[in-house]
Amino acid sequence: MEGSVFHTLLLPDLRQMLDEKDGPALKEFCEALHPGVAAEVLEDLDAATAWEVLTHCGPRTQAEILGFLPLPFQVQLVRSIDGQNLTRLVEEMSPDDRVDLLERMEPEEVESLLPLLAHAERADIRKLLSYPEYSAGSIMTTEYASLPADITVGDALQRLRKQAPSRETIYYVYITDEERHLRGFLSLRDMILAKPDTRLEQLMETDVISVRVDDDQERVAREIAKYDFIAIPVVDNQNRLVGIVTHDDAADVLLEEATEDQQRQVAVEPLEDGYLQTAVRTLIWKRGMWLIILLGASFLTAYIISLFIGEGKGITWMAMFLPLVLASGGNAGSQSATLIIQALALRETAQGDATRICLRELLLGSLLGAGLASVSLLVAMTLVDFYWQAIVVGLTVFVVVITGNVVGAMLPIGFKRLGVDPALMSNPLISALVDMLGVILYYNIARMTESVVA
Amino acid sequence: MEGSVFHTLLLPDLRQMLDEKDGPALKEFCEALHPGVAAEVLEDLDAATAWEVLTHCGPRTQAEILGFLPLPFQVQLVRSIDGQNLTRLVEEMSPDDRVDLLERMEPEEVESLLPLLAHAERADIRKLLSYPEYSAGSIMTTEYASLPADITVGDALQRLRKQAPSRETIYYVYITDEERHLRGFLSLRDMILAKPDTRLEQLMETDVISVRVDDDQERVAREIAKYDFIAIPVVDNQNRLVGIVTHDDAADVLLEEATEDQQRQVAVEPLEDGYLQTAVRTLIWKRGMWLIILLGASFLTAYIISLFIGEGKGITWMAMFLPLVLASGGNAGSQSATLIIQALALRETAQGDATRICLRELLLGSLLGAGLASVSLLVAMTLVDFYWQAIVVGLTVFVVVITGNVVGAMLPIGFKRLGVDPALMSNPLISALVDMLGVILYYNIARMTESVVA
Repeated sequence: MEGSVFHTLLLPDLRQMLDEKDGPALKEFCEALHPGVAAEVLEDLDAATAWEVLTHCGPRTQAEILGFLPLPFQVQLVRSIDGQNLTRLVEEMSPDDRVDLLERMEPEEVESLLPLLAHAERADIRKLLSYPEYSAGSIMTTEYASLPADITVGDALQRLRKQAPSRETIYYVYITDEERHLRGFLSLRDMILAKPDTRLEQLMETDVISVRVDDDQERVAREIAKYDFIAIPVVDNQNRLVGIVTHDDAADVLLEEATEDQQRQVAVEPLEDGYLQTAVRTLIWKRGMWLIILLGASFLTAYIISLFIGEGKGITWMAMFLPLVLASGGNAGSQSATLIIQALALRETAQGDATRICLRELLLGSLLGAGLASVSLLVAMTLVDFYWQAIVVGLTVFVVVITGNVVGAMLPIGFKRLGVDPALMSNPLISALVDMLGVILYYNIARMTESVVA
Repeated sequence: MEGSVFHTLLLPDLRQMLDEKDGPALKEFCEALHPGVAAEVLEDLDAATAWEVLTHCGPRTQAEILGFLPLPFQVQLVRSIDGQNLTRLVEEMSPDDRVDLLERMEPEEVESLLPLLAHAERADIRKLLSYPEYSAGSIMTTEYASLPADITVGDALQRLRKQAPSRETIYYVYITDEERHLRGFLSLRDMILAKPDTRLEQLMETDVISVRVDDDQERVAREIAKYDFIAIPVVDNQNRLVGIVTHDDAADVLLEEATEDQQRQVAVEPLEDGYLQTAVRTLIWKRGMWLIILLGASFLTAYIISLFIGEGKGITWMAMFLPLVLASGGNAGSQSATLIIQALALRETAQGDATRICLRELLLGSLLGAGLASVSLLVAMTLVDFYWQAIVVGLTVFVVVITGNVVGAMLPIGFKRLGVDPALMSNPLISALVDMLGVILYYNIARMTESVVA
């Protein structure tokens, strides 16, 4: 059966089960389906009804399904659950999902919930909540499989059987000493292939690729993607194993970061939830703050034009091509900025490549500029009264495209050097800067050309 | 040890080993490191030297390391390998990596290589090469673990031990009948936890989430990410298992698609390789074709302005605020377009939400427009000769921001309805459309306001 069509097919069935209060069918719904599928269907109900469905299965299944629901829905749902049921559910959740949820709840709600939980769970939660947002620690889980180095493969498989039900993955096993220092790594595949009396220390890899608990989450996700890992171990500054980040959470981070980057690119302050889940109030703020800043930049452009008008250079025909000249520079600048930001994010380019990139963009800009300028010149000739005016348009397009290319390429590199995220250099911001430079170039090129002609 | 710092640390060592022709050390380099780490270091050598290093290990390790190198480097590297070594290497590569490489090579190179390969490999390659680009078939591997339903867990583990060395993953096992129809699914964790004499059919899940071989690769990657799978089975139109897509290839697709989406957003035709690996010739084409199209749109804007100038409405003071008015509309439009394109890609919104989105953007546009218009009005008053001119600027900003919002939101939805990828609606294209509408609005609002004042 294929994914995604599930909810349209299953939702009517589920509603009928609810109407008929068909307990066994509701239990079957929760337990037989993949928890991700069950969650997809429940999402289309209101939170209280979704919880009514979930009361028909045990807390372990409840916790699994809950982990697949979007966070705002999870928050709504747990608010409709009474104390005892909530405690059992939260205890059954995987540590990383649990912390993600608690971070979204009100501090008072968390404070009233914590005393109800078992001591070990409470300590684990406080520890995980203490890691900074967007760090490896904030996305890791503490449910990893670990074993000592001096046991045999046969013993190890026995112990894994015991650990398996409560571990996020048992396919990667980490070898630690008594102080939890990370000593080695083994895959379950290695163990299955080995003789049962082999000792783990003979089999394990000792050069373990790990990340630090305070590493950035995007860096962690990219490491997992690069090395094709199912999970990566997370260590503290004394190389003690404190958790693992699994491939599925890494994929979520990659998707989340890609979405945020696209939003930054158009000068939207990244949204925490989906578009339709975000309040208009929030959207106004996250879009409006940037629009106002960009408006400020546009006023500088207006002011520059007013200076030229004051000089008597605000000639009517020039207004005709003002949007064209500025758009050409802004478009070329946005293209360069995006390509350079991507190259920097993928660590494809070292910072020392700055000179090379600058020369390349100068070359590219000259070629693109020459092409656009030729077309502009030819078409402008059909629209102007004097040919020299078309020459002004062509020349300006040429120079502005080169300017756009170089500004678009250099600003992200400059930001990176200053230690600022280059992705903050949004396309509208590049365009606004190119607008200012473009207007100055346009009026000066017109003035010079006119003086040559006259 | 942490990733990414490897190549700076290891490259000097490697060069020394090469200078000293230290065979055992080079073998150790290839075999002891994670193949992804070895690849990262080799990337900094030229292709012939990289192959010299790889000659010190067996074809299996060579194939593993090769799979972690960027495709253009892989192509260069295999060109420096003689026939027999190349044949063994290609036979050892995993089917999906192999096909990715062959797709990048010249057809003549592939045709001269194929007859040297074993019959089974050849058939597998021809089959995988036949699937359309960007389909599930094009990213899947045929090395999956499969078992019949009627054997016991004990027997299954024995058989898996035999399959393990040549399978991409043995953590997910697919149950098929004699005609390869997909009947069920089991994880290795389930098997480890079960009693050895349990039959697989008692244990397996029968509602298997699968994808079709002609499904889009992005859809497949999102399914894997959504359900937290290590792999997803790929079936043909008769539900016969033909391959699996693994989580690591899914993550690569997600990263690749995110990069392409960002490029489309700024009107760059997606690049196949990284920025610095792409020839200037290619960049000119992939950027220039869109810049020329956008230039065409700008000429329409210029033409529209010329009509107003002809009417005597091309008043000098208006040129001052032309870039400001158009940038405000374009920026708001790009913001809306990006948010809606993301919502559509995440299937967060059904198409039926179009009316709701339109009303929401109308509301957002009015609020954002009112805010920007107030600021514009106040600042413009300090720059103009007559207050009514500032009113024109404020009114136009208000109307243009609303227009930008609605155009930016509706065009991607319209594209989707027409079956065209909404991501094609790039921000510069939105801006170009808003430019045209903006100019018409600007001059008409000016005309009306002036007639009221006069």
